[in-house]
Amino acid sequence: MPKPLYLHPDRLFPADPQTRAFARALYDQVKDLSIVSPHGHTDPAWFADNAPFGNATELLLIPDHYVFRMLYSQGVPLEAIGVGNPAVDPRAAWRLLAEHYHLFRGTPSRIWLDWVFAEAFGIDVRLDAETSDLYYDTITEKLGNDAFRPRALFERFGIEVIATTENPIDELKHHAAIRASGWGGKVVTAYRPDPVVDPEFEGFADNLDRFGELTGEDCRSWSGYLAAHRKRRAFFAQHGATSTDHGHPTASTANLTGDEAAALFQKVVAGRFTAVEAELFRAQMLTEMAAMSLDDGLVMQIHPGAFRNHNAGVFARFGRDKGADLPMRTDYVHALKPLLDRFGNEARLSVILFTLDESTYARELAPLAGHYPCLKLGPAWWFHDSPEGMRRFRRMTTETAGFYNTVGFNDDTRAFLSIPARHDVARRIDCGFLAELVMERRLEDWEAAELAVDLSYKLAKQAYRL
Amino acid sequence: MPKPLYLHPDRLFPADPQTRAFARALYDQVKDLSIVSPHGHTDPAWFADNAPFGNATELLLIPDHYVFRMLYSQGVPLEAIGVGNPAVDPRAAWRLLAEHYHLFRGTPSRIWLDWVFAEAFGIDVRLDAETSDLYYDTITEKLGNDAFRPRALFERFGIEVIATTENPIDELKHHAAIRASGWGGKVVTAYRPDPVVDPEFEGFADNLDRFGELTGEDCRSWSGYLAAHRKRRAFFAQHGATSTDHGHPTASTANLTGDEAAALFQKVVAGRFTAVEAELFRAQMLTEMAAMSLDDGLVMQIHPGAFRNHNAGVFARFGRDKGADLPMRTDYVHALKPLLDRFGNEARLSVILFTLDESTYARELAPLAGHYPCLKLGPAWWFHDSPEGMRRFRRMTTETAGFYNTVGFNDDTRAFLSIPARHDVARRIDCGFLAELVMERRLEDWEAAELAVDLSYKLAKQAYRL
Amino acid sequence: MPKPLYLHPDRLFPADPQTRAFARALYDQVKDLSIVSPHGHTDPAWFADNAPFGNATELLLIPDHYVFRMLYSQGVPLEAIGVGNPAVDPRAAWRLLAEHYHLFRGTPSRIWLDWVFAEAFGIDVRLDAETSDLYYDTITEKLGNDAFRPRALFERFGIEVIATTENPIDELKHHAAIRASGWGGKVVTAYRPDPVVDPEFEGFADNLDRFGELTGEDCRSWSGYLAAHRKRRAFFAQHGATSTDHGHPTASTANLTGDEAAALFQKVVAGRFTAVEAELFRAQMLTEMAAMSLDDGLVMQIHPGAFRNHNAGVFARFGRDKGADLPMRTDYVHALKPLLDRFGNEARLSVILFTLDESTYARELAPLAGHYPCLKLGPAWWFHDSPEGMRRFRRMTTETAGFYNTVGFNDDTRAFLSIPARHDVARRIDCGFLAELVMERRLEDWEAAELAVDLSYKLAKQAYRL
Repeated sequence: MPKPLYLHPDRLFPADPQTRAFARALYDQVKDLSIVSPHGHTDPAWFADNAPFGNATELLLIPDHYVFRMLYSQGVPLEAIGVGNPAVDPRAAWRLLAEHYHLFRGTPSRIWLDWVFAEAFGIDVRLDAETSDLYYDTITEKLGNDAFRPRALFERFGIEVIATTENPIDELKHHAAIRASGWGGKVVTAYRPDPVVDPEFEGFADNLDRFGELTGEDCRSWSGYLAAHRKRRAFFAQHGATSTDHGHPTASTANLTGDEAAALFQKVVAGRFTAVEAELFRAQMLTEMAAMSLDDGLVMQIHPGAFRNHNAGVFARFGRDKGADLPMRTDYVHALKPLLDRFGNEARLSVILFTLDESTYARELAPLAGHYPCLKLGPAWWFHDSPEGMRRFRRMTTETAGFYNTVGFNDDTRAFLSIPARHDVARRIDCGFLAELVMERRLEDWEAAELAVDLSYKLAKQAYRL
Repeated sequence: MPKPLYLHPDRLFPADPQTRAFARALYDQVKDLSIVSPHGHTDPAWFADNAPFGNATELLLIPDHYVFRMLYSQGVPLEAIGVGNPAVDPRAAWRLLAEHYHLFRGTPSRIWLDWVFAEAFGIDVRLDAETSDLYYDTITEKLGNDAFRPRALFERFGIEVIATTENPIDELKHHAAIRASGWGGKVVTAYRPDPVVDPEFEGFADNLDRFGELTGEDCRSWSGYLAAHRKRRAFFAQHGATSTDHGHPTASTANLTGDEAAALFQKVVAGRFTAVEAELFRAQMLTEMAAMSLDDGLVMQIHPGAFRNHNAGVFARFGRDKGADLPMRTDYVHALKPLLDRFGNEARLSVILFTLDESTYARELAPLAGHYPCLKLGPAWWFHDSPEGMRRFRRMTTETAGFYNTVGFNDDTRAFLSIPARHDVARRIDCGFLAELVMERRLEDWEAAELAVDLSYKLAKQAYRL
Repeated sequence: MPKPLYLHPDRLFPADPQTRAFARALYDQVKDLSIVSPHGHTDPAWFADNAPFGNATELLLIPDHYVFRMLYSQGVPLEAIGVGNPAVDPRAAWRLLAEHYHLFRGTPSRIWLDWVFAEAFGIDVRLDAETSDLYYDTITEKLGNDAFRPRALFERFGIEVIATTENPIDELKHHAAIRASGWGGKVVTAYRPDPVVDPEFEGFADNLDRFGELTGEDCRSWSGYLAAHRKRRAFFAQHGATSTDHGHPTASTANLTGDEAAALFQKVVAGRFTAVEAELFRAQMLTEMAAMSLDDGLVMQIHPGAFRNHNAGVFARFGRDKGADLPMRTDYVHALKPLLDRFGNEARLSVILFTLDESTYARELAPLAGHYPCLKLGPAWWFHDSPEGMRRFRRMTTETAGFYNTVGFNDDTRAFLSIPARHDVARRIDCGFLAELVMERRLEDWEAAELAVDLSYKLAKQAYRL
């Protein structure tokens, strides 16, 4: 007989009964607040076209690198679950997930997926080999209903605003289409210039060419290249962007003179640069982006510290974003100094820092954000976007940075259906943390109630200027 | 209507009722023990002159870099709160603190300040914009009473002994005056030679000159310079010092031959040295200080790992110690080896290690202190002197170093009025930790009772030889 | 009157009553499962000869570097407790332990020893100065009984299989003798080639000579040296080995061409190599060992990150393994890439990673093991083999690696009598962790029950192919 699937209303709250009661009371005040999703990777085409999603496997398995990396780690071939393999039988691929679903015990993927199964699709039995077909059929059938089209889900999920992420040579046609459609959902873009900023990005030279075409600037000259960024940032802002995003290997910044920067850019354009020069160019560009943010008001996000495409074999066969990115030890205190020397005291500038290296929370990030007016801390990110990860974030940053140098939650996901689940986890964990502070009399109950709303909703809107 | 300010008697204890009851019982045994404050930065002039403190802003806001760094991080200009600005209206500056007091939710500054407000000044409403003037007036008026003069507070706080920190070219006049006054309060100094040991310290050359004048030694020769240290350490010991303190950027030590050290010193004296040589000189001087400690019995404290004056703009306008010091990743296992190769097995030597890099607690510091006879661990320091920080310290050091390779609590503060609050936090957190061990049957209750006294009082006296 | 010694049945369980009840129920299902000890350092001679152990001091104090390092850190000379001093009076040495037993409060050594005292020897009073002789006499007397001979204890402890660790020039005579004896206890070896792989190991050149003699291969040629490894691995496998073990200073791997490796080997053999070349050779050998594991199926363990023999004085007087090994910061993401580039996607290969640097749990190890099919995570190791250490391991690895990329517990000890205590601690802590997940509804109760058995028993058997 299938095991029942039931989402307990007290899930993720602290065990102590009185603390749990505090947490529940706080959560009850915020659980129905609208979702502000200021950073993520959903596809704007979904909302532009409003076409139905495909089957369970296409929607929930193939695009989710959290899920297929775990299966792969236990010997399930990527092809077998459909990654890079359009010929896969989606029902058979789904069965592989079902048969291996015990691997996700204790992981956030399990929490998110169970929410999607139970809340989004109304399934009331657990996923395993026995229920695999039931799941596949139920999900795939529902996806054919209008109630499961992207815009309907957007509204059902209570999303007030969602940001996608595009690069400068994206024409933002989907965003334009969404606006032109008259649909009321607020979908904005964000400016992620890595493909034209990172000399080591695949296709960098071609990207520069396209960047020049789109902007009418000479992107082989330093001044033209900077002008192109300014134009394109303005174009993105017209499509709702309030932020930029930078996914560099490190947090290094630089503060070169104009001549030095121009000379470095010439090497980069010529394709004759060392790894050190590539890093220096990325570093200088963070500072240039900060300078532009001071002018145009775009909030700057820095997401450093991932060793991308670590698995050479997987990269060769399947390409980017296949669950083979790995965190690296990351320095901020030295790395950010050049940028901070120039703009650190500008209260109008807003730079949101993320990390994959939790050892920096208490040692570097909270002390930096607790001093510099331009710095704030993004939420626990990627591998750390999980109950334990979020708790460590609060425990290690709050005492030095406070709550108001953090920016609420963002889901950073391309798994659209999991967005409510992710915000729900964050709200539950934050309410649990606040309840613990109340229980230890480090906060008054009325302060915790205010903070619960701030962390769930207000801070994200303020920090991202949405 | 103002919100009530009330310090709950069970604050900071674990939530579980039985564990909380154990914690309360332990705490009741230690809460009234005298305060031993073996390391800190109070001003000996307070106790020498016993003049009244000024107004609320002068006493509690302007000198407290924990407080004004948080305000600054949220855009409040330092000038507006009186930092480097004698012309500030203190009442208006206080209002800025009051209006932004919610920023401190979840921080130790909030705990310390609320204790000062409630316990030291008897205020029973919370600080906010509405109560700002009430606070300012109440505090400022009370500071005019004899009961709020430094010596009266010293006695009221139950301080058995307090150590200040002076550099070798300080004449220790205030300490002499305290002794000469016949007042019974025990105020001792500590020898912090950074200004004559760190070639990169502001005014290093002038400091050396003054060092020579005070000691009658030729401080431009290596042997004279060492002799000057020996004389000055003896002078400090006469003024009660039982310890030295070293605030280097890293924990690096060196073990040069006499000739090598003398040659390096000549470069340093001549002002012709590289950054690497400056670091090597500081490293060698830690080993020289250890050698002198073996002779004169002064306990050695090493406080490494701060990137001082990180904010170039703030340093240029406001100078040192303006909340812009940041922790750095710190190595101990390699850094201390030269010193340990020479003196590591000397049980008579006592070196107390501190860190701003919590990743070293379990990885390096506890294993070092759990082996070398000369090493002990100082308490959670600076950014980590907080409830969560103290818990992490105990959880990550106890299993390898035990309790008896730690040295109790020290407050390390210049905020005199917060000293009882800081010791109270440490006692509560330690009692909570001990209660958890009892609850998990890792300790017997009578052992926890002994340890509570050890951690609150005895270990600090023993470790600092007070 | 002596204090009672009593092991509480709920020890090490979470404090919250309902969570504790869950933990107890889980633990009751696993507490009597057989012990699988897939990695450790017991002496096979014990089981071959089955001679009685000596006195309390010889058995429990002198060989236990956890214990004597703590005594040494507090000024007790190593000679006085019998380390490197056969002339010590064992009763007097034992008294030093008894008098200093309070130093172990809060440490895992205390937990293990108390279990040995209470459960193995039936003592019901606490160890202190007053009970020192009682302890010494009771233990020493019981060790003379047949019931305390190695094989009897092996059976009484419910050990299903235990692995020892030998180097390639060990003749495995004891293992052969155990098999020849007809005794049913399963004692297997493991292949630890450090003495013939690490050019900086004491006696490396002599070891190579002996390696050649034993295998009949020319161990001064690269191909002969590799052939010798293959032969010797097969010989170890015949003596039950299912694993190899590698204790390198770092986790560095290399992927040299055959010619490069051969040239490097010639430098190593000639004794003319730099520290960098020694490191490169060790790195290359990890990759060579992985290649051989693909052929012969031996599971590969990597135990990196110890700075061995850090205390120069202790090493000079007392030699290796005297409590003076210290953890170092350790990188995995870069270090393992060469090996992973070659074999990372081989699901038949199994490499078990350990660490002394907990900052890598969430940042590097869990993300690596949660992606690469060949990688799994060993349990919390050495300084971290403790209640808090095990909790941190689970809290920081589970959300990204899951449970099934970990390998259960191994005790890694030479302290034979403590083996049941160590497994018991692991079972209690894991059951407590699972109970917390159930309490937060991150797991169903039936899943936790399955996992308790997996973590206590099944995963170790599977991962080590036992």
